[in-house]
Amino acid sequence: MTSIDLNADLGEGFGRWRLTDDEELLSVVTSANVACGFHAGDAATMRRVCEQAAERGVRIGAQVSYRDLAGFGRRAMDVPPAELAAEVAYQIGALEVFARASGTRVSYVKPHGALYNRVVHDEEQAGAVVEGVLLADTSLPVLGLPGSRLLELAGKSGLPTVTEAFADRAYTAEGTLVPRGEQGAVVTDPETVVERSVGLARDGAVISRSGARIEVRARSLCLHGDTPGAVELARRVRERLTESGVRVEAFA
Amino acid sequence: MTSIDLNADLGEGFGRWRLTDDEELLSVVTSANVACGFHAGDAATMRRVCEQAAERGVRIGAQVSYRDLAGFGRRAMDVPPAELAAEVAYQIGALEVFARASGTRVSYVKPHGALYNRVVHDEEQAGAVVEGVLLADTSLPVLGLPGSRLLELAGKSGLPTVTEAFADRAYTAEGTLVPRGEQGAVVTDPETVVERSVGLARDGAVISRSGARIEVRARSLCLHGDTPGAVELARRVRERLTESGVRVEAFA
Amino acid sequence: MTSIDLNADLGEGFGRWRLTDDEELLSVVTSANVACGFHAGDAATMRRVCEQAAERGVRIGAQVSYRDLAGFGRRAMDVPPAELAAEVAYQIGALEVFARASGTRVSYVKPHGALYNRVVHDEEQAGAVVEGVLLADTSLPVLGLPGSRLLELAGKSGLPTVTEAFADRAYTAEGTLVPRGEQGAVVTDPETVVERSVGLARDGAVISRSGARIEVRARSLCLHGDTPGAVELARRVRERLTESGVRVEAFA
Amino acid sequence: MTSIDLNADLGEGFGRWRLTDDEELLSVVTSANVACGFHAGDAATMRRVCEQAAERGVRIGAQVSYRDLAGFGRRAMDVPPAELAAEVAYQIGALEVFARASGTRVSYVKPHGALYNRVVHDEEQAGAVVEGVLLADTSLPVLGLPGSRLLELAGKSGLPTVTEAFADRAYTAEGTLVPRGEQGAVVTDPETVVERSVGLARDGAVISRSGARIEVRARSLCLHGDTPGAVELARRVRERLTESGVRVEAFA
Repeated sequence: MTSIDLNADLGEGFGRWRLTDDEELLSVVTSANVACGFHAGDAATMRRVCEQAAERGVRIGAQVSYRDLAGFGRRAMDVPPAELAAEVAYQIGALEVFARASGTRVSYVKPHGALYNRVVHDEEQAGAVVEGVLLADTSLPVLGLPGSRLLELAGKSGLPTVTEAFADRAYTAEGTLVPRGEQGAVVTDPETVVERSVGLARDGAVISRSGARIEVRARSLCLHGDTPGAVELARRVRERLTESGVRVEAFA
Repeated sequence: MTSIDLNADLGEGFGRWRLTDDEELLSVVTSANVACGFHAGDAATMRRVCEQAAERGVRIGAQVSYRDLAGFGRRAMDVPPAELAAEVAYQIGALEVFARASGTRVSYVKPHGALYNRVVHDEEQAGAVVEGVLLADTSLPVLGLPGSRLLELAGKSGLPTVTEAFADRAYTAEGTLVPRGEQGAVVTDPETVVERSVGLARDGAVISRSGARIEVRARSLCLHGDTPGAVELARRVRERLTESGVRVEAFA
Repeated sequence: MTSIDLNADLGEGFGRWRLTDDEELLSVVTSANVACGFHAGDAATMRRVCEQAAERGVRIGAQVSYRDLAGFGRRAMDVPPAELAAEVAYQIGALEVFARASGTRVSYVKPHGALYNRVVHDEEQAGAVVEGVLLADTSLPVLGLPGSRLLELAGKSGLPTVTEAFADRAYTAEGTLVPRGEQGAVVTDPETVVERSVGLARDGAVISRSGARIEVRARSLCLHGDTPGAVELARRVRERLTESGVRVEAFA
Repeated sequence: MTSIDLNADLGEGFGRWRLTDDEELLSVVTSANVACGFHAGDAATMRRVCEQAAERGVRIGAQVSYRDLAGFGRRAMDVPPAELAAEVAYQIGALEVFARASGTRVSYVKPHGALYNRVVHDEEQAGAVVEGVLLADTSLPVLGLPGSRLLELAGKSGLPTVTEAFADRAYTAEGTLVPRGEQGAVVTDPETVVERSVGLARDGAVISRSGARIEVRARSLCLHGDTPGAVELARRVRERLTESGVRVEAFA
């Protein structure tokens, strides 16, 4: 039986501000990418989300970011590698304290926003993220895009790697994501997103922008929780996956 | 033979700015209070200081603070206890990652600046700091002022407590520190500081502002490293302690 | 004919986060307390709110705060007066640039959150706020609580002062606000809030917690916009005021 | 008689940290690039530097930066133009309040660090900086590199432009700066810096890396104040310029 992990970004508020409906999302996903304070996520929120995730048996991952609260980590930054590595480790360590206090551990690392996009191609920053993960824990899985520099370097360094796919993003014929900003980059029709989720999880395939069926091998699907209707859609994805004979469970 | 620990604040720069001569201080002290990013201390600095401390066998402590870079943690803040506890744990966790990567551990916690002063008397915030330490590690020693609310509550919670004294601060007849701002609060004459250090370490006593000999029981002496001549003075204190038959070593 | 000003906090998001429905609130109030970046309010938001306020003829005020994004300016801070004065001036200047670019000016200053509460009684900080306002503009009105130290010192310094009242807060028999946290401090029933608004605006009176009718002289009513239903309630308050023969207009 | 402006970065501390010897630099330069809080420069420092500059008749400029305290504004950031424009205006406005309180005005704008380098070539960000300046003041001179996109777009928008040169940086044969990081990019010999200063100011020429004499037309020379000996060198540059018949005075 095929199985798939469902991950989403959680705890992306800061102080007085909230963004994600963390409790609802925790009833859907199997892996929670918890913001660690650099693009979002104050300490009290991190603690709360870790406690709730642990109660529900949802795996906790460190969603590491550039230091950029004002830009929500969405502005690419030329951070020198030594600083970036240390900042990644810092964030993992800060989250680890709340994961442990909740009786569990940080179980993976996933870069956020502009850093996520940058380490698809940027060798220097990808290497810095890997160095940061290694500083924190030499056996910590890294979650990212198949074919990304990040996963390549993580693998070479002996870190477990976990690939993910996006049911709500268009793919090129080469299997890469159509960049945001290009027409049709985001799939907005809920039923289409649900169908693509099943296709990705069960068949390891998706229809590309040009109409071709392409292979996308992913052990996790990324769901989004910060738009109206997002939680409801995530719930439908999970139901349909189960109905389609796909077991929804955290990656091994 | 009497022994004493020497602690000082380290890593109190941020990005482009430096404050303390960390390498020199590490050749004098036995315990390093490392800034954790809230009043000072960027991630790369934390990593560097931890590596250097570990190399020299200097113990690493988490110098936790209010979130206040602009005020260097010196402005008392009414942080709600739940937030303060989480912020304390966050800082300890962030530092722990660098201590572990250097082959050692965070070995104690010491509040910084306005938080240090506040938890002498403020039960709510003292309790929040203790809660934060417990979140991180239920066996982590807390370093603070003898008689402070912080040490009292830490002790009640089962945390080890370590008392400290200040050779460069005036004491009242009751054994409390003369508040900064009052005349004579700070002892500036180097030789007097050296002599008081020996008195505190060897005899557990110091001359109070009113001229009386009072008992001050402390397992650690706090040295300052952020003023001109501070490192040189710290070195003299250490030498004189050794000459006076006091063993300088980290607290047990 | 009696007239009253309606003020509310606007632009209290930051980067990715939003809190207040600024456009809707601008259709109700006559004075907009615009966040200036210290507790909320990034530069792009400040620009947008100033443009929208200017288009609608709503007066722009600088909602100055402690530097505390993580605590939304709700944590009292012992900021030294010289620093606080400069921080107040900094915020006013930053907002002024957007007010001018929108063809208008910053027309008043109102402290936010913990700073607002503190300068009711704290002479030192009240004086620092006044000094900050004077640095920016020696003829800028200060909006605050009747009887507060802030308005007293502002008046002595030659600054115009504007008093405000809260229809959704309980008053003591002495005419001061019942502290948040005490039972009944906040009036939640919408119709009661509407009635108290009319009473405050038209009659300069309100029923205190103990049931006595007390005088509260205020030239502005503060409405809240950050809770569900808040904008709708604000609209009802404005309608009822008009129906009751009170002219809703910015203070002179 | 030829004249030249001397500019330097000032007020680049933050809270407890200091970097530049502002008082000494103010006795040498004719234009002070004052940090505005985004890469350095707290409000109290901005106030102090403005007061000192005004007392000495030194012109005040806004040294605007990316929002990046941790990286001192030296990390290039992909800030969306609308945000960048607003952030630039915000900084100018904040500084303006202190310039006015000191009896003067912000008299020019100069981007700092990574932003300075980026707007040499990046049309989008250069346009955003120009938009930010225009928001603040449509007649405010922009200081930058000759041939930069920034000065080109500023000029097209009707803003006065002021060119600057660096006596301590190597130039290519094409008259551009040798990038930092390349060998010989920085001229360290003090006497050489002094001689190049005179050549740039009096003759509008400098010897390029390849040994050719090239023209560099600049109305201002940028001096650095954040390294040991920097102030002493700046003083020597000023003296030699005067001895060489160059009048040192702020640009018109």
